[in-house]
Amino acid sequence: MSSAVTSGIAPFVLDERLATSCHRLGVFELCTVLLMNDASYPWFILVPQRPGVREIYELAEPDQLLLLHESVALGRALMATFCGDKLNVAALGNVVPQLHVHHIVRFAGDAAWPAPVWGKAPARPYSATELDVRVSALRPHLPAGFRPAVAG
Amino acid sequence: MSSAVTSGIAPFVLDERLATSCHRLGVFELCTVLLMNDASYPWFILVPQRPGVREIYELAEPDQLLLLHESVALGRALMATFCGDKLNVAALGNVVPQLHVHHIVRFAGDAAWPAPVWGKAPARPYSATELDVRVSALRPHLPAGFRPAVAG
Repeated sequence: MSSAVTSGIAPFVLDERLATSCHRLGVFELCTVLLMNDASYPWFILVPQRPGVREIYELAEPDQLLLLHESVALGRALMATFCGDKLNVAALGNVVPQLHVHHIVRFAGDAAWPAPVWGKAPARPYSATELDVRVSALRPHLPAGFRPAVAG
Repeated sequence: MSSAVTSGIAPFVLDERLATSCHRLGVFELCTVLLMNDASYPWFILVPQRPGVREIYELAEPDQLLLLHESVALGRALMATFCGDKLNVAALGNVVPQLHVHHIVRFAGDAAWPAPVWGKAPARPYSATELDVRVSALRPHLPAGFRPAVAG
């Protein structure tokens, strides 16, 4: 189910394709934090909660700075937690134009290495245990500004 | 041939694989601006001129802000020039770990659409005329801080 966050006149609504393909972990000041439901990689997505925005340059400048700040904080936390060989950060949006920024921890020898992850291997949905392990590992590394989603 | 920019102790040297696969267009304050030698897409790359940096979060905070500023300026200029359907912005680096940020103008129906461009179609090198047309179109849209490379 999509949630709406009031922002000025129009509400922000998470794109249905992101909502159904991801677990919603919580929010930073600007962005909703998602976990792609593909246990093949630690694959997280930041979605600025601003309606109608497709490109980073369309964000107001204070929001661009918030996105940078949250992306850097998440990227550092991911690499500290999962000790990957490389972090992939990408705003593509050819299929889902709502602005969203992938943060994917990559390992030499993972299911797509060294290619980008898109279209390489079918998504492997998390079991409840795998999900708990992955999210619990990350939680202590996230900055104080992160507010976890209410379970249920 | 790679160029070196002195920065503190170690010099910055553009990765040889980027140097050989791209045309060097010029520099912003932080980044070298490259054009991927693949006429299939308007595909530009920003490379922060800082030695040894692989991830955005490894840049000093003032450099993170410069990268954001230059990425936003380039992205806006690209979409104003080429009127694409979507801009793809990505820092991957699985093959070339030196930090570099792709900016690719995408069109519905282009050689890889809607997939990401990597690994989809063989690069189609520019003719001299195509190169001149593409770069000349972009030039008036680039911000004042851009300094073109000396031809030769």
